[in-house]
Amino acid sequence: MDSAALYANIIRKRSFLCVGLDSEPEKLPGCVRNSKDPVFEFNRRIIDATAPYTVAYKPNFAFYECQGSKGWDSLKKSVSYIRENYPDIFIIADAKRGDIGNTSKMYAKAVFEDMDFDAVTVAPYMGEDSVIPFLSYPGKWAVVLALTSNKGADDFQYHTAINERLFEKVLTVSQKWGTPDNIMYVIGATRAEMLADVRKIVPDHFLLVPGVGAQGGSLKEVAQYGMNSKCGLLVNSSRGIIFADNSDRFDIVAGEKAKEMQQEMTGYLDNRF
Amino acid sequence: MDSAALYANIIRKRSFLCVGLDSEPEKLPGCVRNSKDPVFEFNRRIIDATAPYTVAYKPNFAFYECQGSKGWDSLKKSVSYIRENYPDIFIIADAKRGDIGNTSKMYAKAVFEDMDFDAVTVAPYMGEDSVIPFLSYPGKWAVVLALTSNKGADDFQYHTAINERLFEKVLTVSQKWGTPDNIMYVIGATRAEMLADVRKIVPDHFLLVPGVGAQGGSLKEVAQYGMNSKCGLLVNSSRGIIFADNSDRFDIVAGEKAKEMQQEMTGYLDNRF
Repeated sequence: MDSAALYANIIRKRSFLCVGLDSEPEKLPGCVRNSKDPVFEFNRRIIDATAPYTVAYKPNFAFYECQGSKGWDSLKKSVSYIRENYPDIFIIADAKRGDIGNTSKMYAKAVFEDMDFDAVTVAPYMGEDSVIPFLSYPGKWAVVLALTSNKGADDFQYHTAINERLFEKVLTVSQKWGTPDNIMYVIGATRAEMLADVRKIVPDHFLLVPGVGAQGGSLKEVAQYGMNSKCGLLVNSSRGIIFADNSDRFDIVAGEKAKEMQQEMTGYLDNRF
Repeated sequence: MDSAALYANIIRKRSFLCVGLDSEPEKLPGCVRNSKDPVFEFNRRIIDATAPYTVAYKPNFAFYECQGSKGWDSLKKSVSYIRENYPDIFIIADAKRGDIGNTSKMYAKAVFEDMDFDAVTVAPYMGEDSVIPFLSYPGKWAVVLALTSNKGADDFQYHTAINERLFEKVLTVSQKWGTPDNIMYVIGATRAEMLADVRKIVPDHFLLVPGVGAQGGSLKEVAQYGMNSKCGLLVNSSRGIIFADNSDRFDIVAGEKAKEMQQEMTGYLDNRF
């Protein structure tokens, strides 16, 4: 999917919501636990309930890998389910991959060939040849970690050389590896005030913003500081939506929570577009 | 496995060789391709042939994930095979993981509970809370990327603030998160001259050194600059051993290559221990 199609979906659905499918097996509601594939059954119901309000899904691989090959199967089925039923929705592999060139090439194969993701999150520490293999698939994206939403972001991401913080160097250098049509950046909502600085370096790129909801970030501030002339935002919420309720109505409540966020987003979009 | 046991194995086997099981499906010799599980069959034969000369194995996850859940099964079987037949050998999950705390916890579960690895490579970009979950398992290790062997290492790892390069900051900060009994560092052999600088910051930690062989690093220089008072090195070779031959004698040739490296290592160990 190219950026034009993604922007069109945002405008049409009045939403830049990404729902994080962090479907931790131990947190699943009782009503899906007797299914043949509880994680897939949970995802299927969450997807059906939230699809009207979201433009992207983002399964985090950790919550599937913790169940080994069974988890991998649940993940693959979930991606296929989205593709078949909601073909306009952007699907992000939140896998934080990145390794030397020949190895990143295999990770790209896993997410773009064995599965049909649109994008994958990539850790930039190993530099250019660790990211480039993800950019060689037409219509596919690398989402590079720049400024993350967790406390540990302070440890290295602000390392400053002659007025250039490391995350700024990541933005400056890595944007040369691709285009705003195949690179996005992760910028945590918990750092909303930094979004203005980020936009000075990457005015045109999509930003994938985690940290709204359970982690405490403000959607309003994200929209205020991070939106560009075409929106340029995907805001993720995981636990705040998918685990909002633990009863057999979990999917309905998830849909309501997604709708709430979508409606708030509509307000910010209506102000601008 | 604690460091005392790992050091004892190094002294006993006169080797600090780690064999990288980067078992790319498309590169497997024809003679294993008709097996029920070609990747496992290849690994089993490589393991049997190289086990006398190695103290560690390091499967790189990318080469398994590219086959989806089937690859995941091959990986798990390979780890179990090493555990059952060569219980003294240290097994490293080369997965370059790292995410916010609750997510890293699930990655740790995948490698330390669903599978029985001794260690996992971790990308440090997201800082403390992305690494800590891997350190809460007694006897298990995080292997933190510090200075990698690839060209892209130049992009960010030398980012310098007041005489402190980023990889030095990673070493300085992250060693406070654990001990030399649960943290190792990745330092590429292609940067052998940097090993002296690295040793000033982390004199006691094990260094996992990729890049000897196919990537051009020198084992002699690694031993010269990187060895500490107890050895403190695990030197990895992947393609140079496992894909040295493509015939039905591939395992025998792999064993010979591993033995060559082990014998060179014996020389460096005999000089010191």
